[in-house]
Amino acid sequence: MRKTTAIDSGNTLRFQKVSDQSLPELACKSIINILKETKIDKKEIDGLIVSSCSTEQYLGSIISEMININPKISTKIENLCNSGTSAIFLAHSLISSGICNAVIVTGIEKQNSPGNKLLWDITRGIYDLPIHWASLFAKTHFRYYNTSEEDLALVSEKNHKNANENPNALFYNKKFSFLDIMNSKKIVDPLKILDCCYPCEGASSILLVSEKFAKKSENPIWIKGISQNNQGASFANISSDLRSVTTTKTASKEAFNQANLKPSDIDIAELHDAFTILEIMAYEDIGFVEKGKGSKFIEQDSIHINTRGGLLGCGHPIGATGIAQTNEIILQLQEKTYNGRQRKNCSRGLVHNMAAAGTSSTIIILEK
Amino acid sequence: MRKTTAIDSGNTLRFQKVSDQSLPELACKSIINILKETKIDKKEIDGLIVSSCSTEQYLGSIISEMININPKISTKIENLCNSGTSAIFLAHSLISSGICNAVIVTGIEKQNSPGNKLLWDITRGIYDLPIHWASLFAKTHFRYYNTSEEDLALVSEKNHKNANENPNALFYNKKFSFLDIMNSKKIVDPLKILDCCYPCEGASSILLVSEKFAKKSENPIWIKGISQNNQGASFANISSDLRSVTTTKTASKEAFNQANLKPSDIDIAELHDAFTILEIMAYEDIGFVEKGKGSKFIEQDSIHINTRGGLLGCGHPIGATGIAQTNEIILQLQEKTYNGRQRKNCSRGLVHNMAAAGTSSTIIILEK
Repeated sequence: MRKTTAIDSGNTLRFQKVSDQSLPELACKSIINILKETKIDKKEIDGLIVSSCSTEQYLGSIISEMININPKISTKIENLCNSGTSAIFLAHSLISSGICNAVIVTGIEKQNSPGNKLLWDITRGIYDLPIHWASLFAKTHFRYYNTSEEDLALVSEKNHKNANENPNALFYNKKFSFLDIMNSKKIVDPLKILDCCYPCEGASSILLVSEKFAKKSENPIWIKGISQNNQGASFANISSDLRSVTTTKTASKEAFNQANLKPSDIDIAELHDAFTILEIMAYEDIGFVEKGKGSKFIEQDSIHINTRGGLLGCGHPIGATGIAQTNEIILQLQEKTYNGRQRKNCSRGLVHNMAAAGTSSTIIILEK
Repeated sequence: MRKTTAIDSGNTLRFQKVSDQSLPELACKSIINILKETKIDKKEIDGLIVSSCSTEQYLGSIISEMININPKISTKIENLCNSGTSAIFLAHSLISSGICNAVIVTGIEKQNSPGNKLLWDITRGIYDLPIHWASLFAKTHFRYYNTSEEDLALVSEKNHKNANENPNALFYNKKFSFLDIMNSKKIVDPLKILDCCYPCEGASSILLVSEKFAKKSENPIWIKGISQNNQGASFANISSDLRSVTTTKTASKEAFNQANLKPSDIDIAELHDAFTILEIMAYEDIGFVEKGKGSKFIEQDSIHINTRGGLLGCGHPIGATGIAQTNEIILQLQEKTYNGRQRKNCSRGLVHNMAAAGTSSTIIILEK
């Protein structure tokens, strides 16, 4: 894929359960942090895409006014848990078409987001919380591949440990041992409360720039591949084979083709661990390990995975998550993380973001 | 501007006050009408953008599943009354970047849309309905340019007359005479109820295609210029001069530059007449007539204006309006309208769509 779009810089505010800040305030705080850091002038910002499941209207224009920019295009988008990377996809399109040179993508969410429930999918009956499909994925994996509750707990332990090194994580400085996780309350068999991410409040933003503008960037990180796959919206539509998330497999294949790379070329990855089982499935569906061997991959160290703490350790402010995941890869490739979280010698990273039972997934491959 | 994006075909359902159809049902009915007509195969559709102010989640994916497509990108966008053309802007970007070849844009709204009120703008105090800023625009025009209530009534009379020839209009077959309009109830001085558009339910969709795919189109209409201008979100931010809608002026200038055309090259235009005064101001701000002479332009016949009946005659299903406006220009240029509404010898058209006191406007220039 031709180098058209770079990420100049990004910012994530500390995720928290709740605060009295409005959505536009959250976005502005995050964007102002970018404006302090970048060499791109505020007047040169010609696009703004807001990612949120919020029901508030005209957020693109409200935030444009609050940060005092006059973009060529300003709008809000919503695509459930996949909103953040959908916004990045559209921003990349605006830049690679030559329409824009500098696009800010900002993801914002409050804890009581309407995105937390999947109300439209009557194929689930009353089982309208995401954990209901996640438990079926887990049971399928247990049955076919002998994955166990202990394996799931290892994922949670690893990601919470990483979150302890991330001051922006909801569970920063909150320690959970393997036994804490194994003994946590079972919600929907076999998933326990510490197998699940925590819906929370948060904001995360990035500034995408054209090749021309990237010359001003201190440390641009390039989009080498970006792909989304959509297989509808309902669990019934994707449940013929619960061993894989088809959208992740398809989007990965396409993104690796665009980048002319293979999974073993990736040094660091952010995977969508809304539930522990999803991280294990993502290992397999992206191709880091063969199908069925995911549980053996949890403790490997050839690829750094979910170094910010994942959704499990950071919390899940829906519209912000895909952007916060991307920000972690940016910071790691730019060697700008701190608190002992920095991994060495990473030059290529991958972001995996998905929505609603894996009915849609996005993969982004980044390179410094 | 290089020819990158054509509109293959479109569809608008009849606008109505209310029905028991869901938003996805409305979208699907409209999209299915396009699929019946186009030579593009359903499997080739690789993008879907839903335009709506609705609070329903994951509409892009729900509609993708209902019409059984697997797009590369599927998402919902919201930008108040400017949503429809914002969606077209993003779809054009997806095509001109080479990412997609065939993108469906669908606009859907119910009458009780949360977009009907402007709740965030506390600079208005309790005056949170759009008519409050529209009345200030009207009073300013009256004071500076001697525009009168009779002039406003002439706009309403013309557009309602056009709506009588449009079976998709909310006010199809509803006749309003000049006197009916002048005698209608005053809402906020000087605006009467028949100076205002009617929030309603509706759906409108178009299929945008790449140059390559346009070879399969029977009668492609090309995007020659497309520009949006954003000046924030609040009335306070744009009220230093109420004689013009600055965003319309700026977006028009840019779109004409892209198209290498001037206002007198336009044969037919759809202008955002949410209130009668806005049509008069649009004549001036787009440059069809000089500032202050708008009221003299109402009865001209060099450019066909709001032939479908405008927002005044068709109703205003917020997320669908910009797309329905675009569809009227498409049909007129393709010579496919009926019921005596067809204008002859039109080869270039313009769409003007705006939001919230003119804080943002989009202009699209189309050519056959």
